[in-house]
Amino acid sequence: MIQWLAHRPHSARFNSSCGLPVWSLHVLPGPAWLQSNETNPMDNSVYRDYPFFADVQVMIFVGFGCLLAFCRFYGFSGMVFNFLTATFAIQWAIVIQGFFQFYHEGKIHLGVINLLYAEFACAVVLISFGAVLGKTSPVQLLVMALLEIPVFAVTEWAVLKYIRINDAGGSILIHLFACYFGLGVTFVLYRPALNNGHSKEITSYHSDILSVMGTLFLWVFWPSFNSALTLKGDDQHRAILHTFIGLSSSTLTAFALSTVFNKRGKLTMADIQNVTLAGGVTVGASVDMMISPSAAYALGIMGCTACFFGYKYLSPFLARHMRIQDQCGIHNLHGLTGLISSTAAICAILLATEETYGPSMYQIFSHRAPPEGDPKLLELQTLIPGLKPGLGRTAQEQALYQVAAIFSTIAVSTVGGVLTGLVLRLPCMASPSDEDCFDDEVFFDMPSDFNRVEDIKNSMMMQ
Amino acid sequence: MIQWLAHRPHSARFNSSCGLPVWSLHVLPGPAWLQSNETNPMDNSVYRDYPFFADVQVMIFVGFGCLLAFCRFYGFSGMVFNFLTATFAIQWAIVIQGFFQFYHEGKIHLGVINLLYAEFACAVVLISFGAVLGKTSPVQLLVMALLEIPVFAVTEWAVLKYIRINDAGGSILIHLFACYFGLGVTFVLYRPALNNGHSKEITSYHSDILSVMGTLFLWVFWPSFNSALTLKGDDQHRAILHTFIGLSSSTLTAFALSTVFNKRGKLTMADIQNVTLAGGVTVGASVDMMISPSAAYALGIMGCTACFFGYKYLSPFLARHMRIQDQCGIHNLHGLTGLISSTAAICAILLATEETYGPSMYQIFSHRAPPEGDPKLLELQTLIPGLKPGLGRTAQEQALYQVAAIFSTIAVSTVGGVLTGLVLRLPCMASPSDEDCFDDEVFFDMPSDFNRVEDIKNSMMMQ
Amino acid sequence: MIQWLAHRPHSARFNSSCGLPVWSLHVLPGPAWLQSNETNPMDNSVYRDYPFFADVQVMIFVGFGCLLAFCRFYGFSGMVFNFLTATFAIQWAIVIQGFFQFYHEGKIHLGVINLLYAEFACAVVLISFGAVLGKTSPVQLLVMALLEIPVFAVTEWAVLKYIRINDAGGSILIHLFACYFGLGVTFVLYRPALNNGHSKEITSYHSDILSVMGTLFLWVFWPSFNSALTLKGDDQHRAILHTFIGLSSSTLTAFALSTVFNKRGKLTMADIQNVTLAGGVTVGASVDMMISPSAAYALGIMGCTACFFGYKYLSPFLARHMRIQDQCGIHNLHGLTGLISSTAAICAILLATEETYGPSMYQIFSHRAPPEGDPKLLELQTLIPGLKPGLGRTAQEQALYQVAAIFSTIAVSTVGGVLTGLVLRLPCMASPSDEDCFDDEVFFDMPSDFNRVEDIKNSMMMQ
Repeated sequence: MIQWLAHRPHSARFNSSCGLPVWSLHVLPGPAWLQSNETNPMDNSVYRDYPFFADVQVMIFVGFGCLLAFCRFYGFSGMVFNFLTATFAIQWAIVIQGFFQFYHEGKIHLGVINLLYAEFACAVVLISFGAVLGKTSPVQLLVMALLEIPVFAVTEWAVLKYIRINDAGGSILIHLFACYFGLGVTFVLYRPALNNGHSKEITSYHSDILSVMGTLFLWVFWPSFNSALTLKGDDQHRAILHTFIGLSSSTLTAFALSTVFNKRGKLTMADIQNVTLAGGVTVGASVDMMISPSAAYALGIMGCTACFFGYKYLSPFLARHMRIQDQCGIHNLHGLTGLISSTAAICAILLATEETYGPSMYQIFSHRAPPEGDPKLLELQTLIPGLKPGLGRTAQEQALYQVAAIFSTIAVSTVGGVLTGLVLRLPCMASPSDEDCFDDEVFFDMPSDFNRVEDIKNSMMMQ
Repeated sequence: MIQWLAHRPHSARFNSSCGLPVWSLHVLPGPAWLQSNETNPMDNSVYRDYPFFADVQVMIFVGFGCLLAFCRFYGFSGMVFNFLTATFAIQWAIVIQGFFQFYHEGKIHLGVINLLYAEFACAVVLISFGAVLGKTSPVQLLVMALLEIPVFAVTEWAVLKYIRINDAGGSILIHLFACYFGLGVTFVLYRPALNNGHSKEITSYHSDILSVMGTLFLWVFWPSFNSALTLKGDDQHRAILHTFIGLSSSTLTAFALSTVFNKRGKLTMADIQNVTLAGGVTVGASVDMMISPSAAYALGIMGCTACFFGYKYLSPFLARHMRIQDQCGIHNLHGLTGLISSTAAICAILLATEETYGPSMYQIFSHRAPPEGDPKLLELQTLIPGLKPGLGRTAQEQALYQVAAIFSTIAVSTVGGVLTGLVLRLPCMASPSDEDCFDDEVFFDMPSDFNRVEDIKNSMMMQ
Repeated sequence: MIQWLAHRPHSARFNSSCGLPVWSLHVLPGPAWLQSNETNPMDNSVYRDYPFFADVQVMIFVGFGCLLAFCRFYGFSGMVFNFLTATFAIQWAIVIQGFFQFYHEGKIHLGVINLLYAEFACAVVLISFGAVLGKTSPVQLLVMALLEIPVFAVTEWAVLKYIRINDAGGSILIHLFACYFGLGVTFVLYRPALNNGHSKEITSYHSDILSVMGTLFLWVFWPSFNSALTLKGDDQHRAILHTFIGLSSSTLTAFALSTVFNKRGKLTMADIQNVTLAGGVTVGASVDMMISPSAAYALGIMGCTACFFGYKYLSPFLARHMRIQDQCGIHNLHGLTGLISSTAAICAILLATEETYGPSMYQIFSHRAPPEGDPKLLELQTLIPGLKPGLGRTAQEQALYQVAAIFSTIAVSTVGGVLTGLVLRLPCMASPSDEDCFDDEVFFDMPSDFNRVEDIKNSMMMQ
């Protein structure tokens, strides 16, 4: 039974049918009659979170939707399955994350900020979806979301509660997790027959343009994605600037590499659709730190270069020798870049000093703040009122915890992905045959102008 | 003569040519020199209203525009006539609503909030447009807007001023009004020859994708639409959450129903384009009340189910037996869902108690607040400073007024629609012939690759 | 060496390799430890600027990108070169504008507001790009941006610092500059062979729809563009309203003119894509003044009319007799409208009196405020605390400075454009041959369904 509990304080509470404890959803920051008389309604958290939430919504539904519609015969599926999977994943994540992180006294607290957390969980599923695009039925996608969200929520909860890391843009928890989970799934769903390509695995003029539109929406709103969960104020300001700078440098690098490494000096649309975005991931883990604009710029170039050569050399290698068919190349766009980003964040943590950051260092690296009772905490709290006690970690300790988080995230996500892949291979999952891959017609009533591959082949033979 | 009167206090006033009283437009919250010295420019109402206004703009121009471009040979018209009609309707609504609601001392007060009201009036026209899409000339559409806006503005003014209802998301005033007005128009414009379909009434692969993009934009920004005119603070927060929940549940339901009730278990694009949105309308009338997330979820499912079966069974029935050819099925997406939403709001009103809501009940259900002079009002005003006196209605009374508003809205809109339809049948309206329906070529200079139906038929014969 | 200097106060400073003075980028409004303890993080300037920045981002990347993709065989190039040019121009503008305007004590100050300034500089480049669309290689576009940004930044700096004008929407500095720079470039790049059209210079059904989508995004967010840099509060509110009104009137006018002046009474898509937007430019220079809604409406009509007839008569004349091939007709959409807008602003300046504006006149027309030391300044500062001293100009003086700014902007931009054109004609610039104009295939690996013009001609011959 889900309800705004705070608004029904005396109403009957129902035990849910599965015997779980009573829980309910409740609007933050609490009901009107608990607020002091001076409360200004414009101080409601909705006005801080909603603009970022709306931007991330556009990224998830329009940006991803268009980007994944790049196949000539799989445009309906790319866009519509993204819609279906995203809607399901967000709902499921609200419930699961609610149980793990926002469950107090029998209630799940719900506000726009929780929708935002759920959208990030949804982004994880959609990234993993990229690895198996075209080779899975909607049933398989929903089951994948059903299994991935809890694994993600537990990992997120454990990392944030026990390991405690800095990862404002989600390079570790979102991008690395999603990437290795997706690779685990696609490893199990290996289709040897597709290793030499598929006759329907092509783009069209319009699907390429649509996909670039998706890239542009992601590009434009990425600063909102990376900064949505930082501290408000200067930290969020920095996160926006660093993301913009990282994206800008990776875009120019992508254009340069695409032209230089093309045999005839031409641009490849797949590079523009994907590689340009690498910088957004690469600045992620250190996006709110004082890493300087030039470091953000350099990270964009490095991430983009790794991503580009990943597409060129690593993906074919993985497909041929490791049984990993990574359809959209998420290992390049999210894995390699996520690793660079995580490493950069460790460097930034090791280099951070109070000299550079001033006392605000203990806000950004909150686990380095002195613990409760330490006299230094009181001293700092005179400088920064409301500073929360931390764990008193040194920079080296924090860096080691980051390393621990990276390895445990990769391990958990890979194992989770492989197990999920095994579930998806069950016969009841309606997996499409090799021939039916990348084909809208299996799942949709098609309009009469849909060109079937056979028609196109026939018409070419007639010529 | 339109002017920012407050800014020209001593300027000459012109009588408008048609003999109407002097009026003028004026920026809220008033000119700078009337403000106290401490006024913070960031307290200007523009910062509260503009983000919601911008979101609704995207819905009106991009969302509706793409959604209505779903016909293969009528994409230009769908998108461009939406642009034309919307622009005209907003301007006309600013003037008409200004006269009825924002006219004080010879001036029409104008701020972004008024543009927002006008966009809602425009949404009414665009929904009604859905009923006659493909069968009307731009002249007819403009005349329809010309007549619908005043009927709507009078209804809105009368309902808000005299009946006084709760309808934050506009389920009654926007969706029900628009639906029955549109049905009235299409009833009069009945074309028997089109009852068995039209050879050009088909989609194409690209028009279907474009239309889904429109749906996604509407989906993403619908929470802004439903919450734009609520009280600021917790109420707006709740409205956003309820809309998101309602849309989420209706989307999953739409996918499920579309697959289950399809003969071959495939998805139908028309369901994804329309039925997924039903939840947004269904939560509308009670969107700012404390109805609990589970109620919002249930409303989404109910609205979606009604909408789906409406498309399947009711629309064909209406077309065949009632002379009502509802092109986009607005009766399903706005009528049935609007009725469910209105009923749900009545239930929520009857169930609302001070125990549940606290004193904020008299803010949300403002007409239940004690009237001026009642000692209870003073008592409540100590808890909620600035609480406005109400009408002292009981829950039952308010519920009856809601019922009255529903019936009078339906009655006025149906009659208004029928009369408008009669005007649109005048010979000077350049109504397209049956054969010219759903054909861009009648209204546009076409690019050379535009496939005419005849060409396609010929090429099929040649094969 | 770029860094957030304020965050590294004691770090080593590097001399950049080219011997320029040390400079660095730094987050506004300064590091946390300089702020007073009471600072509310939500007062950070990012929350005032970021919403407008995000809207302008959508215009630049999605709006312009789609609008410029209107050619049937040049959609990839239109959208992707816009992406490339915009990304490069913004980065370059941050650096160049930083040196000229935000360089204090060896540091360039960087905040979201600076990204916004850079996006405006980028808009200048993209408008100029419109003049040479289809006839330039990406190398040429990048070189054009490389040269145009410094010329623009110097002009902007000189006009704002020495001439000091009112131009909130950038009609003079953005639109007039961009237009005459672009005309200068295209004058030098004259291609006689293209004067009678080019076989690939056509649209398709889908490219026309895509281009209208771009127009709609520009239309929807134009109020943000025109109001992004005004004073906060009432001025920004007015700017939003005036822009909306101007766009609305120009849209209706464009539809009317397009139908009336078409031989067969049909609509022309090019008019809808371009002429509808004329009002946004035309209200630009006076957008924050108290010009009254009717004046904004009239400006929209005038700008639209000039723009429409410019497309109809002036552009062909310029191409035939003046060697100016203005591909997208920027002289109509930005030049003629910019001139009307500048003239209107001069009228508004001449008509502005303290009677109309109250003391806020000295905020809007800041150069008319009394200079430092004038007793009238102290008197005004009691009415408007924080009013900055101005130059004590009269209305007539300010008007003359506006005229000076218009002429010097046009002169500098024309000369700059011609010189840039000469650089672009250097052999190393990889200018496409006449035959390769308007052809994606020269620059991109094309998907297999890309219809080459030859194919289409052949298939037409076979019929």
